[in-house]
Amino acid sequence: MNPFTSQPQDSVGRMGEVELTRRIAEWLGPVNPLPPEGIGDDCAVYTVEAGRPQLITTDPVIYGLHFDDSVLPEQAGAKLLKRNISDIAAMGGRPLRAVLSLTLPRETGVVWVRRFFEGIRECAVRYDIKVIGGDIARSEGFLGACLALTGDAPAGRALTRTGAGIGDHLLVTGGLGGSLSGGHYKFEPRVREGLWLAGREEVRSMVDLSDGLAKDLPSLLPPGSEADLDWESLPVREEAKRQSETDGRHPWLHAVCDGEDYELLFALDAGKAPEAFLREWKERFSCALTVIGRIMARGEDSDAPPGIRIPPGLPELADLRAYEHFRSN
Amino acid sequence: MNPFTSQPQDSVGRMGEVELTRRIAEWLGPVNPLPPEGIGDDCAVYTVEAGRPQLITTDPVIYGLHFDDSVLPEQAGAKLLKRNISDIAAMGGRPLRAVLSLTLPRETGVVWVRRFFEGIRECAVRYDIKVIGGDIARSEGFLGACLALTGDAPAGRALTRTGAGIGDHLLVTGGLGGSLSGGHYKFEPRVREGLWLAGREEVRSMVDLSDGLAKDLPSLLPPGSEADLDWESLPVREEAKRQSETDGRHPWLHAVCDGEDYELLFALDAGKAPEAFLREWKERFSCALTVIGRIMARGEDSDAPPGIRIPPGLPELADLRAYEHFRSN
Repeated sequence: MNPFTSQPQDSVGRMGEVELTRRIAEWLGPVNPLPPEGIGDDCAVYTVEAGRPQLITTDPVIYGLHFDDSVLPEQAGAKLLKRNISDIAAMGGRPLRAVLSLTLPRETGVVWVRRFFEGIRECAVRYDIKVIGGDIARSEGFLGACLALTGDAPAGRALTRTGAGIGDHLLVTGGLGGSLSGGHYKFEPRVREGLWLAGREEVRSMVDLSDGLAKDLPSLLPPGSEADLDWESLPVREEAKRQSETDGRHPWLHAVCDGEDYELLFALDAGKAPEAFLREWKERFSCALTVIGRIMARGEDSDAPPGIRIPPGLPELADLRAYEHFRSN
Repeated sequence: MNPFTSQPQDSVGRMGEVELTRRIAEWLGPVNPLPPEGIGDDCAVYTVEAGRPQLITTDPVIYGLHFDDSVLPEQAGAKLLKRNISDIAAMGGRPLRAVLSLTLPRETGVVWVRRFFEGIRECAVRYDIKVIGGDIARSEGFLGACLALTGDAPAGRALTRTGAGIGDHLLVTGGLGGSLSGGHYKFEPRVREGLWLAGREEVRSMVDLSDGLAKDLPSLLPPGSEADLDWESLPVREEAKRQSETDGRHPWLHAVCDGEDYELLFALDAGKAPEAFLREWKERFSCALTVIGRIMARGEDSDAPPGIRIPPGLPELADLRAYEHFRSN
């Protein structure tokens, strides 16, 4: 749905900021507590549970970049929240409170904004998050929203990207690739899974796959190591396979480069057998969990940068190493 | 300074996101702790002091709206942080940690971005704030940054907008009006002052003047009341008087409508004499403190909306009541 209206009476420009803020509080309903905990004061005021590590992250959604007219306003709103929730999940955290900064052209339609916030509300209810503050700014032509999300770590530790060692197994939740077919906004962040993983001491480090395995995996690798993937085991999503048939790129390339998977990738202690871990997982969660490889010491003859070991005979995967861009997702 | 470069080799588009993130961490220097407390993981991880109310706020700066080419990049960066600090100050809080979401066109010059972050760093050092995380997104033409700032309330209470009563005195720090002459980015948030005020129980509620007295004052007014200002006492800034001479608008109008004063406005208990309070203030702070009026019960014959009582014989101030816009500052 296109966010803009040609009817001035249906635009946020006609409404004014005070009225728009009042409506937003109304649209958010129960996920917006009364001030000073919720929208309506200079800051939101809240308390935290003593002794727990606190988490905070921020990510935007921008019209034309993270969503377009093919995405419903509800889906764009939910995506804004879910992108941030996924970061909290990646630390084994519990999402708690969000503040939201909205930038709108005057010609943005009130209906679009209402549905955007309804998407935020529905998602916030589902993940038990409160939206407690924000800001509205006017722009010329640019439509975007930036959210900061706080959380805490009930397990008493946050699972960082640091801590994996040589020999550790690499495991990934769900499936990879093909996010442009809709997965980029339909995904569900792995909060329950992340919370459980943070409570397992054999899980040594974790990251969420927002930019894709090729870019996100290296952040887990300790110095002098590389990832040796079992390429045949990669959980390639059906959407990625279908795109492969269309564009001729290998499905594995889609799986590691598409990005916006929002799955969890973690390192399991080298001394533990993944089989028992997988059995425990299956008893708890319906989402898949796959062992995709191990962290290996890098050969002394290799001068390659840290990353994924390229399988022989698959030169098309060599461009993985060059995978770096000015963030496009 | 214009943020964009015509030389591709000097642009952030050439640099790539990984390198730009590395540089930003470098530019921020000591105000960016090591991960997981600082930039570099999915979330920033931190601890809080037990028992204190926690605060969070968010505000952006947008090129063309909150700053333009006449503003140095360091000033724009500092303004981003200071807008948010002022919200923390308005609760009597202590600013602590920031996360920052940056939206840049590819053609943004690296030098501009470096100086923007140097402005953030210098300001963060001055207010003892850590910048602990963020995000970089690409845009077409839109340059903006959104910051979320956390803090806490060392006095054990946060000074909200609620709590003032009939008869309370209204006091304001510093001077008002004329912010377009440079005050909108040169201001210093009243953190020390706010912290002290939160510790004084005779201070009942507080707000920072970001949109101007006419718009921000009503948020302090209890139902059935209005503000009776002593117009002659208003601390009108010299810049506002100079603008008056140019544009012919009454200096009082500048003082209450210009916005971006970032001064503190608070209500002092009706039972307390302001004189003693002002003496104590003077011993501690160099910035001015002025009694500008009182909160009065609204006359039964008045059907005016809550706000500032318009003085008789000054019809030019009547448009105060209509002061509402889709936020332009």
